[in-house]
Parts: sequence; structure tokens; C-alpha cells
Amino acid sequence: MGDPLREDARTIVRRAIEAVQPGPAVRRALSGWGKGAGRLVLVAVGKAAWSMARAAWDCLGGQIDAGIVITKYGHAQGPIGSLEIREAGHPVPDRAGFSATGEALRLTQGLSEEDTVLFLLSGGGSALFEDPLVSPGELEDITGQLLSCGAGIVEMNTVRKRLSRVKGGRFARHCAPARVFSVVLSDIVGDPLDMIASGPAYPDSSTCGEARAVAEKYGLRLSERARALLGRETPKFLDNAQAVITGSVRELCAAAAAACGELGYEPAVLTDCLDCQAKEAGAFLAAIAKSHRDTARSLAFLAGGETVVHLTGRGLGGRNQELALAAAEGIAGLRDTAVFSVGSDGTDGPTDAAGGYVDGGTKQALERQGLSVFDALEENDAYHALKAVGGLLFTGPTGTNVNDVAVALIRRE
Amino acid sequence: MGDPLREDARTIVRRAIEAVQPGPAVRRALSGWGKGAGRLVLVAVGKAAWSMARAAWDCLGGQIDAGIVITKYGHAQGPIGSLEIREAGHPVPDRAGFSATGEALRLTQGLSEEDTVLFLLSGGGSALFEDPLVSPGELEDITGQLLSCGAGIVEMNTVRKRLSRVKGGRFARHCAPARVFSVVLSDIVGDPLDMIASGPAYPDSSTCGEARAVAEKYGLRLSERARALLGRETPKFLDNAQAVITGSVRELCAAAAAACGELGYEPAVLTDCLDCQAKEAGAFLAAIAKSHRDTARSLAFLAGGETVVHLTGRGLGGRNQELALAAAEGIAGLRDTAVFSVGSDGTDGPTDAAGGYVDGGTKQALERQGLSVFDALEENDAYHALKAVGGLLFTGPTGTNVNDVAVALIRRE
Repeated sequence: MGDPLREDARTIVRRAIEAVQPGPAVRRALSGWGKGAGRLVLVAVGKAAWSMARAAWDCLGGQIDAGIVITKYGHAQGPIGSLEIREAGHPVPDRAGFSATGEALRLTQGLSEEDTVLFLLSGGGSALFEDPLVSPGELEDITGQLLSCGAGIVEMNTVRKRLSRVKGGRFARHCAPARVFSVVLSDIVGDPLDMIASGPAYPDSSTCGEARAVAEKYGLRLSERARALLGRETPKFLDNAQAVITGSVRELCAAAAAACGELGYEPAVLTDCLDCQAKEAGAFLAAIAKSHRDTARSLAFLAGGETVVHLTGRGLGGRNQELALAAAEGIAGLRDTAVFSVGSDGTDGPTDAAGGYVDGGTKQALERQGLSVFDALEENDAYHALKAVGGLLFTGPTGTNVNDVAVALIRRE
Repeated sequence: MGDPLREDARTIVRRAIEAVQPGPAVRRALSGWGKGAGRLVLVAVGKAAWSMARAAWDCLGGQIDAGIVITKYGHAQGPIGSLEIREAGHPVPDRAGFSATGEALRLTQGLSEEDTVLFLLSGGGSALFEDPLVSPGELEDITGQLLSCGAGIVEMNTVRKRLSRVKGGRFARHCAPARVFSVVLSDIVGDPLDMIASGPAYPDSSTCGEARAVAEKYGLRLSERARALLGRETPKFLDNAQAVITGSVRELCAAAAAACGELGYEPAVLTDCLDCQAKEAGAFLAAIAKSHRDTARSLAFLAGGETVVHLTGRGLGGRNQELALAAAEGIAGLRDTAVFSVGSDGTDGPTDAAGGYVDGGTKQALERQGLSVFDALEENDAYHALKAVGGLLFTGPTGTNVNDVAVALIRRE
């Protein structure tokens, strides 16, 4: 493009995502690890499942007796030894996911206490690893209700765990008495192991009372059966499960900040646990950039985490695109100033973009095309608005998934 | 209270507000100022009108031939020389304000080009200085519509200017050929002179087209007459008006930061032009505080500006109270961490509080009383929630009005 600010944004995104690739971390977690005397079954689940399984196979290859990789459509990058590779729907679970999960349950059925399940878990697992106790149709309906009412991921998972054969520690209980060793790439702020992918192999700290409170708070429409399931408790104690965490949004922010520093910006990581509304976070970051417009030095303000989107329209977009688009208003007219936001998994919402990028000229560029920031946000249609002005960021599936990072850049020579 | 964090908050609020008192600034603006050969009429309008007029009287006393002070109920602090002192309704304009404005128009009627109007303007003037071209009932209805749909102050003023005899430069045109010298205490981010108090003595940069766009965007219900008025243009050029700005939210933030520094915190002013949703700004500030929970040094993060509230309920509160209450969720359980937000005028929304204060224990304290942050925000009832846990900040009317400042404090020994 020849646009230095945009080139900087691309470089920052690339380096940050490279730094949180799960391969090296998985190899670290498995080096010196003893699998036990019996069989070793690998189950890899999530948007980063393929890279994690690839790394595990490279470490343990011959020792793995059977295994399955369950990842999002488009995220598998080829065969890995004798592992079964399955792709499935995300964020809305589908039958391919249910069937793959059923296969994982069969592979881990009837194991002895000498056996081990190596469970490689990453974000996206809530949708991809699912064998529902309600009908697929009702599960889809409840997920849709939760997504559209603006429920947080914690609330969403508190409900979904109770509708599932595998979530909330139930997968580990299914594997017992075999040992379950989890390697977890975290995509939830604060890394709560019982929440990442809805914690299939971790004692569940959420309670039936909380699940019912979420249902009531958002007025969820539930069948009798679903309502009864919300009252069935999940495992609160598991003596066969162990876990290590290998990545997190904190590392993503640190890597992005380091990349900013190498490009000559003075970086400040404001937070790595952002959880407010995407568009308001964009407005806040824009206000920060605007206040620093008189700076003589190049500055970068970073905020990591996972924002939420309130659906008010029927457009296309994702939380990173909404955040960036909303910032276009506040930085309109500012020279050498940009705000961008990306999901480290490379897929923001149900789109092919990883996130969005705006600068001081974006608002005017939209207006020249008869588009407005306000209308696009009301319609939740950030994708098409950003597309019209070259404001989408693409990475393709990245092989990792440790949440999002948003950056405000002010460049000075 | 013996609670050091809360004491720090009170000290910061007190010192910041002291630092933006308009008196010294008004005296500075008037020192060496020559009033001209003719009559001198003083018109002071806004929440800080009384202090501004007091300072002007002290400077110019004997030279002032006539004058009027129009401020919010409870904000006048006694007589000032021969000036007429009036109190009126804010944020919803009332008949006392219309009548006082009519009096100001009479005092400034028929002046010659040798005469001078000293116009002391501060925030709140949009409501307090008004002589409407529509019926008071319709003006109230339109203002109510704009407040409740979440319109920004800029949008609000673009519409209200056209329904008024004094706004959008029309007051200065009324005073012509007399000279109008304005001393302005800014309460709008970026200090746009045509927006502060809806710019009675400043050429109006907003257009009829923009006013109609706001009406359309929010689906305002308007009478035929009001709709016609939106098409009547405001003065775009005034050769009899001059203005100086004497205060701003930037000074408020700087003073609050200085107070933080004196108390041992390392202060960072993130922005002085915050304009996003109040509760999301609270969530963002809480996320910043949470991310820094492992700090060994005491930290203060400050954000100034004017947030907005979307009315979804029928409770009592203000934007500063909403911001603080929303932050209670994100900082719950954190030790020696607080978030507070205050309006420098001392009255946040239609309440007697200046703002709100929460700390790591606030969420639990609310729950012990059967209250929830979420419900209180849904109901826009931050006032009662904060009141229940001692989380309201009171200053009384402060005599100044330069917008709001929010602060996240982390105290370490």
C-alpha cells in the first residue's frame, strides 16, 4: 500500500501472532513428560487443535495409540500421522462437531487407570467439542439466544455446560479411571480452566444456581428438558485430571507491544482483560489517541481481552471489526493515527477477516461512499463498511487462539 | 471513614475542583481589558455563573451599568452588587429560565455600538439560557427525547439552537451593534465555542442539514413549526463578538493527576476527551485496574471528558455514578483498588451527588443487600445502589463546570 502506518499495523499483527503459536509451547509442556504404562489417546480440540496436535505428534509420535483432531472448518492443514482429522462448525456447533465428539468419546471409552488421554485444548472448543443432551435444534436456538442478548462467554458457558455430555468436567469423568493430561491454550481473560472451551477436563466451579440466574437474566426460552438439565450438577472434583496452560492474551499483548517498540513506538499495555462492549472500547481507544494528538513521540496504546457485541442489526462483522470501526469516529481528521483490532485466531466473528483497521481518513472515506460509522454499527455491519474502505485485516487461520488485541498508533517522524 | 483509599479519592476530587475555580481565570481574562466608551451590561449564564460574575464584579464593579446572573437552582451564593440573580431549571429548562433569559434580552436591547455586553458563559447554559421559539411544552418534550435516546451533547445542541431566540449566535446578533465580549468556562471536550451552552455569542458551525439528520437519526417527534425552525439558519458570521476560554477538562485532569501524584500515586492521564457510554468506560477503567493488580507501585489512571448514558430504565443516577457502578464488577475482589468519577460542577445528573466511588468490596456489599450491579445499571438506578453501600460522592454545587473526571486508583504501601 505504501502507507507506513498500515504497514506497521500489519507487522505488529504478524509478529504478535507468531509469538503466540502453540507449537513451541506444546513441545515445552511435553518435554520430559511420562505418559504412563498403558495406552495413549490424543484428543485435540479447538481452533488451534491442528497446530497443537502437530507439535504433540512431533514430540510423542510413536507413543500415540489413537487420536482425533477436531477443529473449525478451514483450520486443518493436512494429515498428522494416524490421527483422525475432523472439521466442524463454529461459533454455532453443527452435526459434524457432534459426530466428531462422539468419536472422541468412543476412543476414550473403557480405558484403564494405566491409560492416558492427552487432551490438547484451545478456544472454540465450546462449539467444536459437543455432544448435546438436548436436541441439536434446541442447542442451536439457546446458543443463538445467548449470542444475541450480549451474554458474556462465562455466562454462555455456565449454561452450555449443563446441556452437554462433555463440558464442565464431564469429559474427564467419562475417561476415568484413565488419567487426563490437558495442555491448554487460553482464550479467556484470566485463564479460568473451567471456562476455556467450557472446561471438559476440569472441575466445574459454576453452579446450577448460576446457570438458572443466567437463564432468568436474559429471559432464555428453554424446553422442559433443558430446564431440568440446568439443575443437574457438574463434577466439582476430579482426581484423574491435570492441566498446564501454555498461552494467553497476556503474551499476545506483550508480543504486540514488543513489535510496536521495534517499530519505534513507545508502547503502553493498558489492559489484557478488556471485556466491555466492542464499539465503546473503540471509542475509548480513539479518545486516548485524540488526547495525545500533540505528542512529539510515536505512541502505541494496547488493550487485550475479549469484548462483546450487542446485536441490534443483521449485518456482518465481528467484535474486532466493530471496535475498529467505532474508533474511526473519534480519530477522524487526526494525522498519522490509526486504531486496529484483531483476533489472534484469524477469524473475527463469522467472517473471513481477522479484524479491522481505521485511520484519521476512514470516516471521510466512508462518507464519500455514502456510508456512516453510526449506521454500520447500528446494523452490526462493520465488515461491509470496512471492506468498502480497505479496512479489513486478513491473516487466514493462524493456528493459534489466545484472544484479541486492539492497538491505537500515533506515528511521528 | 478511616478508609485511606476513599480519603484519597475525596482529596483528589477536592483539589481538582479547587484548581478549576473560575474566579482567578475570569480576573485574568479581564485584567487590562477596556470596556469601551458606552454602557457595560453583564450577562452571566451557566452552572458557574455566580462565581464568574462575582469575580467580574470584583474587577469591574463600578463600571457595570446593569447585569443579570442566571444559574441552576441552589448554585447562587448571595447578592452581587446591583446584579439581578436568578435561578432556573437544569437539565430540563423551565419557565424561570425563560423569564430570566427574557430579562437578559431586555437589558441588552437597543444598545449602541459604543456599548459592551460582558457575557460570562459556563456549562449548563443550554438549558438555563433559553427563550424558545416553540412552546415550552414542546421544547421540554424534544429535550427529553434527545436525552433519552443517547444523543451526544453536540447533536442535542445542533437541534436546540434552531428552536431558540438566543442560541447559535442569535444572542450576539440581538446585542448588535454593541460589542459582546465572552469569557467562557468550557465544559465540552475540545472546547468548540459554538457548542458550549449552544454558543449564544459565537457564529454557528452546525447547519440545518445536520439538525435534520439528527432528527432523522433518532426519529424525533416534532411539530410542523419545530420542523420548519430546523430549516431556519443560524448566524455564520458575527463581527461584534469576541471570546476567550478560561477553563477546560484538560486542566481538571491535570489538577486531578497532580493531586494523585502528591498522594504517592504514579498518575497517567489516558484521555481528556472521553465520550463513550458511561458504563462501558467504567468497565474499561476497571479492566485497566485489574490488569495492573500485581503492581508494586501505587498507580492512578485518569480519564476526563463527558460520557453518555443510554436510558433503559427509570431509576435515578448520572453518568459519573453509572461509570463508577459499572466498574464495581471488574474490580470486585481486588485489594486496595477503587474507581471513582465526578462531575466538576458537583451535580451528576438530576441528583444531589457529584459522582460515585466503588472499590474491590463494593460488588459484594451490594450483593449482601440483595442488589446487583447489572440490575441497577439496567434500571439506570446507580444512585440508589451506590447510596446503599456508601458509594456516593458529595461536594455540593462547586461554582465551576468543566466536565467530568474518572480515576482508577491502585494503592500499594
